[in-house]
Amino acid sequence: MRNLKLLIEYDGTSYCGWQIQTRTKKKSIQDTIEKALQRILQEKIKLIASGRTDAGVHAFSQVANFKTKSRIPLEKLQRGLNSLLPRDIVVKNIAEVRLDFHSRFCAKSKLYRYTILNRPYPCALGRNYAHFVPRALDIKSMQKQSIYLLGKHTFKSFQAADKIERDPVRTINSVNITRCKDYVHIDIEADGFLYNMARNIAGTLIGIGLGKPFNIKEILKGKDRSLAGPTAPAKGLCLMEITY
Amino acid sequence: MRNLKLLIEYDGTSYCGWQIQTRTKKKSIQDTIEKALQRILQEKIKLIASGRTDAGVHAFSQVANFKTKSRIPLEKLQRGLNSLLPRDIVVKNIAEVRLDFHSRFCAKSKLYRYTILNRPYPCALGRNYAHFVPRALDIKSMQKQSIYLLGKHTFKSFQAADKIERDPVRTINSVNITRCKDYVHIDIEADGFLYNMARNIAGTLIGIGLGKPFNIKEILKGKDRSLAGPTAPAKGLCLMEITY
Repeated sequence: MRNLKLLIEYDGTSYCGWQIQTRTKKKSIQDTIEKALQRILQEKIKLIASGRTDAGVHAFSQVANFKTKSRIPLEKLQRGLNSLLPRDIVVKNIAEVRLDFHSRFCAKSKLYRYTILNRPYPCALGRNYAHFVPRALDIKSMQKQSIYLLGKHTFKSFQAADKIERDPVRTINSVNITRCKDYVHIDIEADGFLYNMARNIAGTLIGIGLGKPFNIKEILKGKDRSLAGPTAPAKGLCLMEITY
Repeated sequence: MRNLKLLIEYDGTSYCGWQIQTRTKKKSIQDTIEKALQRILQEKIKLIASGRTDAGVHAFSQVANFKTKSRIPLEKLQRGLNSLLPRDIVVKNIAEVRLDFHSRFCAKSKLYRYTILNRPYPCALGRNYAHFVPRALDIKSMQKQSIYLLGKHTFKSFQAADKIERDPVRTINSVNITRCKDYVHIDIEADGFLYNMARNIAGTLIGIGLGKPFNIKEILKGKDRSLAGPTAPAKGLCLMEITY
């Protein structure tokens, strides 16, 4: 038995997210890749990702692993997968890892990037990869408030209602807000993210950048979702890197 | 009467090109913008662009002008257009110009960028904006040969068959070939481009980068399309800037 680790890039625009959703007709990324793997390897495959991504969220480097009896050379498997997969999913690398490697449980931290197009008019090129905010964002205010996100906190105020009750304590290692020409990037690295947490933080920081009186210290203390800003649109979010 | 100059960004993926084509069912960019202008201004509008772009070719900054009797404020017109236009066409700026300004005749030079993804596996994000070349390109050979493109030449070998006989003499001011991580950019600035000229030059330079024995000096001298490389795919090409 081999344990294979995939590095996957995907454009989430046309998908219901990583995991299969019963309430939508859109395909899931997991199911699409599993089917391609099964067609090549001719055995039932169960892919385990570092975490789910929502409908419309992208990944520059998602990690997922699966076990197989196949001895197929990894380069051949990668070429086969990339020729079978639709053009919006690409396998960037395949590596054999220890049998006890688990994409989710072994992940030490995750880096998400939220991208905002911040100029008076929208963009045509790359319009699916950035959230358009026409009014100028006050980056300094966003940076100043973002400091309160750092460290170990109960992120209940930034957590969407979830079917499963989860421990809402997470540790954010860094938040970097940078401007590059017309684009503003919010890079958040944490040991884990609650459901919609990255987008709720982005939505709150955008609110701060637009002059809304959000106080992150108070929002965290309140442990109440209604205190924070709105959920920023999915298309601006991209899973950048998982550290193991 | 006012003469208005539009700066337009578009994703050419879903269009038959700038101009209306009778042999395809796809919409043209020109027609799409003219219809939006006519709906707002309630008069017949004739848009004149700096030049046509082919099916699938993008523009970061296309320039087009039109004459109108309307006194509508330019900001209001821009907002109206961007709300009526599909998301893959954006008007970045509108300015009033002299009545004798003509987007095509007044253009001094044009800058095109050809983008190549050069790594062993394709990309999912931004896959419509780059041509995928899996084998490593020898950038130095491409740069060395590109020097022979500079200056005033008869570009007949790089011109596709066209319905209208055109003078094939053009002046290329600069060709810059640069690598940025997995991407290779070919930036070509010229006083004008013949039909498919940018893509035929890109296709030939890619051939050189892959070790094919193209000799640009000889290709130019031969004045024969069959001497040059293939036409590189449209999706890698983007009209970047027009200088007046």
